[in-house]
Amino acid sequence: MSRLHESIRRVDPIGVGWRERAEARLGQLTKPVRSLGRLEEIAARLCAIQQTVTPRAMPRRIVVFAADHGVAEEGVSAYPSAVTAQMVGNFLHGGAAINALARAAGAEVCIVDTGVAGMIDASATTVAFVSRPVRGGTRNMTKGPAMSEDELRCALDIGLDVADDAARDGVAMIACGEMGIGNTTAASAMTAAFLDAPAGEVTGAGTGIDAETHARKIDVVRRALIANHPRRDPLAILRTVGGFEIAAIAGAYVGAAAHRIAIVGDGFVATAAALVAASLCPPFLDYWFAGHRSPEPGHALQLLFLRQQPLLEFGMRLGEGTGAALAMHVLAAAAAVMNEMATFDSAGVAGRGEAAAYMVGES
Amino acid sequence: MSRLHESIRRVDPIGVGWRERAEARLGQLTKPVRSLGRLEEIAARLCAIQQTVTPRAMPRRIVVFAADHGVAEEGVSAYPSAVTAQMVGNFLHGGAAINALARAAGAEVCIVDTGVAGMIDASATTVAFVSRPVRGGTRNMTKGPAMSEDELRCALDIGLDVADDAARDGVAMIACGEMGIGNTTAASAMTAAFLDAPAGEVTGAGTGIDAETHARKIDVVRRALIANHPRRDPLAILRTVGGFEIAAIAGAYVGAAAHRIAIVGDGFVATAAALVAASLCPPFLDYWFAGHRSPEPGHALQLLFLRQQPLLEFGMRLGEGTGAALAMHVLAAAAAVMNEMATFDSAGVAGRGEAAAYMVGES
Repeated sequence: MSRLHESIRRVDPIGVGWRERAEARLGQLTKPVRSLGRLEEIAARLCAIQQTVTPRAMPRRIVVFAADHGVAEEGVSAYPSAVTAQMVGNFLHGGAAINALARAAGAEVCIVDTGVAGMIDASATTVAFVSRPVRGGTRNMTKGPAMSEDELRCALDIGLDVADDAARDGVAMIACGEMGIGNTTAASAMTAAFLDAPAGEVTGAGTGIDAETHARKIDVVRRALIANHPRRDPLAILRTVGGFEIAAIAGAYVGAAAHRIAIVGDGFVATAAALVAASLCPPFLDYWFAGHRSPEPGHALQLLFLRQQPLLEFGMRLGEGTGAALAMHVLAAAAAVMNEMATFDSAGVAGRGEAAAYMVGES
Repeated sequence: MSRLHESIRRVDPIGVGWRERAEARLGQLTKPVRSLGRLEEIAARLCAIQQTVTPRAMPRRIVVFAADHGVAEEGVSAYPSAVTAQMVGNFLHGGAAINALARAAGAEVCIVDTGVAGMIDASATTVAFVSRPVRGGTRNMTKGPAMSEDELRCALDIGLDVADDAARDGVAMIACGEMGIGNTTAASAMTAAFLDAPAGEVTGAGTGIDAETHARKIDVVRRALIANHPRRDPLAILRTVGGFEIAAIAGAYVGAAAHRIAIVGDGFVATAAALVAASLCPPFLDYWFAGHRSPEPGHALQLLFLRQQPLLEFGMRLGEGTGAALAMHVLAAAAAVMNEMATFDSAGVAGRGEAAAYMVGES
């Protein structure tokens, strides 16, 4: 994991200097002080990330990591594993929710096969595709570690490479989505381990399962944790009860932060990767914006653990990066405020000094 | 007000037919059922508004109505009335928050002078501008009605014309913003009258005032209501304690609903106009999406009164249509889902029927 640790060392806290410069500029813009509320905080953070008072908002990139999960054979999902490869085909042909929402957000989409079990139809693709399967799915975590040390390193490296590519392409903001039948089960086990929470509290309905399947899923999470007892070591948790796509996201998260790229968080599975990144590297959170909160019970607990307030809450529980895609627009709008608004001086509008004089005169 | 009442009669409840057709289509798209949460409800409502399952999201238009308020002479704002004309100049030259956020939202901006007191510099404008001042500001509502019957009709007609123009131009979604020093005082008085609430509960800090000015503002709202006692007659409230820009928004709201155009609500002042529209014409709310919730205490109460859940909550309290601009993206994303996603059949992805078979087989 030397490459990961090298990136971790390169993640700087964003510091107060640029944030204060951004706040000073926000105070000069033609609007009452702090009247754009949280949008101004986002703007200032974007400025500090990019070390400028005129942050870029383009290009935007959404990278969807796909992989299968051995644990799916326990019957924890409403869908069979075959759906992972089918949905990757759908991403590549532009017909999935993330394609529609990424286009609406003005973001490029890149799909990364990190370990899909089935055949992927990559003919006539309309989006970027990277095929780097670590293995045709993880091992069943109820019977031992989901992956080997070597496989974990491979998966993390995929994410680090994705971050390097984004930096090379000048990406201003990045989001990571995921697709993998069974991956909310992995995310539940990871969340239980990180938060030291009972399986029943962090295991939800995923893409939609009945009560019987839900009870089985909770049992599977419990058994995976007993079989692996990863304690609180972030990489041990990721390796034993995580997934290739979750590891790749963790790598991409740390790598993007090391490159000072703003990161938009997604749902429950992607946020399991944020638990890894934040535990290994606390300043990572300076670069990561919690995009939305899903109805998965574990997602709210993850965000509490990370002390992050989500930007949006629409009851979305699809993954793929869809929540992040919607939230990206908020960051873009914050950047627009910094770049496009006039100052009181330049617009010839009376500022608060004159207003104060007026108030004294009138009252 | 015959023109207003004619529009009111033309506002149809959106009905369940198209909503059900949209929901049926949403169920065929390549995602677990209802996994996009509230975004799917928004999509279905957009479909019902436009009577299609492939709703348009363009063009989008944000109309900012500006006017001055006689009550500003009571010293209720942090800014002098002169700022209204200066900010209109800023809108026209593209330097205000609404310009930046409208561009980010892919929306056209149109500025309408409905009664600004000062001189507007309309040279070298970068956005559409309509000059139709009813009068150089309303009268001081603490001393009598803010406007005459005739002035109210003129202001409503401006909004109805704006809606007609939007329909002619095929606008898919519209938002109304406002600018007018003193207009949160008018909105507070209107809200107190509609909700039968004490002035102190619906009167906030507006663009940012100190405690002394806030106390004076509450007193001004009280005195305006005592001087005018408009009871609960919507048009009497609008006329006696409203404003030209608020009346124009009420007209535009009703007119847009009559033309089946989706409407994105903004902050406290614009929502005062929604109180008028919804009281006169309950089906109006089928067309109006509560864009955001501002920290103005009266805004939360207005939304409760209207039984609407805001899309966003970022502590924005600027007006101008800025909250609506940010929320417009959510509607656009919902439309993209309907227009751009593949169905399970067309994408060759296993749907829930096969999934159910799989579950039975595995467990």
